[in-house]
Amino acid sequence: MNASTAMKVGPELSSVFDHIAKNNDKFVSRLLDYLRHPSISAQNVGMGEVVELLVSMLRKLGLEASAIPTAGYPVVMGRWERAPGAPTVLLYGHYDVQPPDPLEAWISPPFEPVIREERVYARGAGDNKGQHFAQILALESHLAVHGCLPCNVIILLEGEEEIGSPHIAEFVDAHRDLLKADLVVTADGPLHESGRPIITYGVRGIVAFELRARAARSDVHSGNFGGLAPNPVWTLVHLLATMKNTEGNITIDGFYDDVGAPTELERTAAARLPLTAEDIQRALGLAKLDNPTDLPLADRLMFRPTLTINGLHGGYGGPGSKTIVPHEAFAKCDARLVERQDPEDILRKIEAHVKNHAPDVEFIRIESTPPSKTRLDAPFSKAIQSALQIAHGVEPLIYPSLGATLPDYVFTKILGTPSFVVPYANADEANHAPNENIKICCFLNGVRTGAALLDALGGSPR
Amino acid sequence: MNASTAMKVGPELSSVFDHIAKNNDKFVSRLLDYLRHPSISAQNVGMGEVVELLVSMLRKLGLEASAIPTAGYPVVMGRWERAPGAPTVLLYGHYDVQPPDPLEAWISPPFEPVIREERVYARGAGDNKGQHFAQILALESHLAVHGCLPCNVIILLEGEEEIGSPHIAEFVDAHRDLLKADLVVTADGPLHESGRPIITYGVRGIVAFELRARAARSDVHSGNFGGLAPNPVWTLVHLLATMKNTEGNITIDGFYDDVGAPTELERTAAARLPLTAEDIQRALGLAKLDNPTDLPLADRLMFRPTLTINGLHGGYGGPGSKTIVPHEAFAKCDARLVERQDPEDILRKIEAHVKNHAPDVEFIRIESTPPSKTRLDAPFSKAIQSALQIAHGVEPLIYPSLGATLPDYVFTKILGTPSFVVPYANADEANHAPNENIKICCFLNGVRTGAALLDALGGSPR
Repeated sequence: MNASTAMKVGPELSSVFDHIAKNNDKFVSRLLDYLRHPSISAQNVGMGEVVELLVSMLRKLGLEASAIPTAGYPVVMGRWERAPGAPTVLLYGHYDVQPPDPLEAWISPPFEPVIREERVYARGAGDNKGQHFAQILALESHLAVHGCLPCNVIILLEGEEEIGSPHIAEFVDAHRDLLKADLVVTADGPLHESGRPIITYGVRGIVAFELRARAARSDVHSGNFGGLAPNPVWTLVHLLATMKNTEGNITIDGFYDDVGAPTELERTAAARLPLTAEDIQRALGLAKLDNPTDLPLADRLMFRPTLTINGLHGGYGGPGSKTIVPHEAFAKCDARLVERQDPEDILRKIEAHVKNHAPDVEFIRIESTPPSKTRLDAPFSKAIQSALQIAHGVEPLIYPSLGATLPDYVFTKILGTPSFVVPYANADEANHAPNENIKICCFLNGVRTGAALLDALGGSPR
Repeated sequence: MNASTAMKVGPELSSVFDHIAKNNDKFVSRLLDYLRHPSISAQNVGMGEVVELLVSMLRKLGLEASAIPTAGYPVVMGRWERAPGAPTVLLYGHYDVQPPDPLEAWISPPFEPVIREERVYARGAGDNKGQHFAQILALESHLAVHGCLPCNVIILLEGEEEIGSPHIAEFVDAHRDLLKADLVVTADGPLHESGRPIITYGVRGIVAFELRARAARSDVHSGNFGGLAPNPVWTLVHLLATMKNTEGNITIDGFYDDVGAPTELERTAAARLPLTAEDIQRALGLAKLDNPTDLPLADRLMFRPTLTINGLHGGYGGPGSKTIVPHEAFAKCDARLVERQDPEDILRKIEAHVKNHAPDVEFIRIESTPPSKTRLDAPFSKAIQSALQIAHGVEPLIYPSLGATLPDYVFTKILGTPSFVVPYANADEANHAPNENIKICCFLNGVRTGAALLDALGGSPR
């Protein structure tokens, strides 16, 4: 299968595509309506209203729909399960959006959606309203044309993704019966910057922590007390230097214990990705990449864990010199974890290392999310690939894993369900930033992709 | 000689002491007058007026006096050289004061001197107007009683000490002929906190520098670029860890090359100082002191160099976590140098170390001052000790060196003249702080000490 080979579109999907084409303007206009409703989880703005709006939207399509309470914002669920024998897909998305600050940086107000240069500008346009709304329209289009869906569908829309999904694991664990599915598909994030579609099979996990060192009651004179008063900055420097060496290897006992090698399929897929050191260097303005440079880029981005100092602060930071011994310092760090590394185990190992090398340094856990991985040869993998090929006319890029974090593990680790991330938005969607947008062509192709996906799953054996 | 043994006061000094006792109130009142004139070098406030005031004050005593221009503020000089065959002492002080900010923290305005609880409160009361004015009154008292001084005197009052003495070395080098003296005495700084007098024979030098690391154009996502984009904080951590080890030893090639052992006299004097780890720990609120703990405290404070990180800053420092790879970081450091270490040589060695271990890190020099040392058995050492014993009725503490920095080297290294620091102010003078003050008894004992000093030098062979 070449990147440019068009797939054959069956007559049932073809008529759905026709319906979508006829309704382009209406779909965009309805997206604008949806985006007019703010739903800012971090600020508790408009959440209840959008929950009601979604439940009634799903019911109107003929889905069983309800808002299920959590300890935080409710989860909106919808179900259509009238395709006995066909697989069940769980479509995950989130109805909450990032706060729009700084407001003055927006060209048009974040909750007054407008179209400029073939893009819809509004908070949530890309992340994630525009994407799960495209999924919903795909369902609607199938139902409008055929009166039924090719497969069973469960919709799960979370209201707390932008504040770190604090209750989704608990929710999923408590409602396993409602979430029985053959696969999970998430439309979130951006397409490749070339515009090519992407399927992501995993994400790395994360642990974040802080190291805090204290010594004297206050800063003291370096002439009178340098070398006598312990220096918390030196303490952190010496501690951190024992945690990762200059070759880029993490030197915490047992840190790599559960790091496995990528599968042959994963290695092959990664090698085919358009990923070069030169591109990264150019994009970031770097003369060279960091150590370990002897590993393939894809390994370092997807298959190996990292340990990053996000910030280190202690003592004087103003102009000129101030000859003090600082009395406190702190470092904030994160580690990205790969499949089979357990955040709890890694945090324990880091904490033991700290206690061993710098017993007076305080170790503070900040956050942790387990990694997630779906096998490249998992069931329905081919169906998703062919749906993307049909909708985009171009072969998708296969990412065995992403660098960044998503709470994908709740599906793969808690439910044991394969999970695929299939983004619809343009690479420059400006999510989490002012002037968030989605290209109209990306949105509409999202509706087509969603429709093709249901069609492909309907044609797949369970 | 025991700490409590009083020295015999000769009749000539005795009559000077009587004169001082009779004029206590007048002297304090004239100190208040002097302190009313601000002379803030950092803000160019009142400098010219105080220069004129001092020149006329010295001329009134019968000294040849003038203000000698420098590239900055003038140096005020006064001379009385009518004691042929007697030694010449150069009395150093500085007429500039620290800025008084924060003004709201002063109980009474900084340039409206007042007496509260037997102390004079004003900016400059201790640092340094109250101390060099006491010297001047000692001269005045000798001249009033005897019509002459027991030895020759050169007064040198600098106007830039509080801004780092940027022109004093140049001035001293250019005016060697005007500064020919047998010894230099500086009345600056505080007595021991017990109230006992102090003689200091040396000060450590200093070099201060900054290390600056940069990588990507801006902070980047640690999931997408951690381990790929070089992290300037890791760069500084790894570099700094090669510069000093956890045992407290500086590991820069050649750093200790010119560090000599203290003389027997110095070691004996240091061992007699009331200096304990417990006192320092209690004062600073420390559970323990820093490595190397196997060296005597006095060695670490006076006879060994230090390397201190004054501050290190890079990346995120706010609440919670921000999972970035920082794009820049900097560390500010100082090293305290001991006798025979040359700042220029040390800076070259540090810079070479940086280039060798982290060639991309920028090395920026901030400041440097050479160390200074006068031998404990230098000429006039005994005369100064006995003058202090006479004025205070208690044996002085002998500090072979001080931890902190003074531009003493201009006398010892440029002129080759032995230099002694003999402070008059109380330990809680609050110099450089709001509510600066000098105890009236310290000020008046300063006048007596100055008088005893001239007397003792007059009786010493050249």
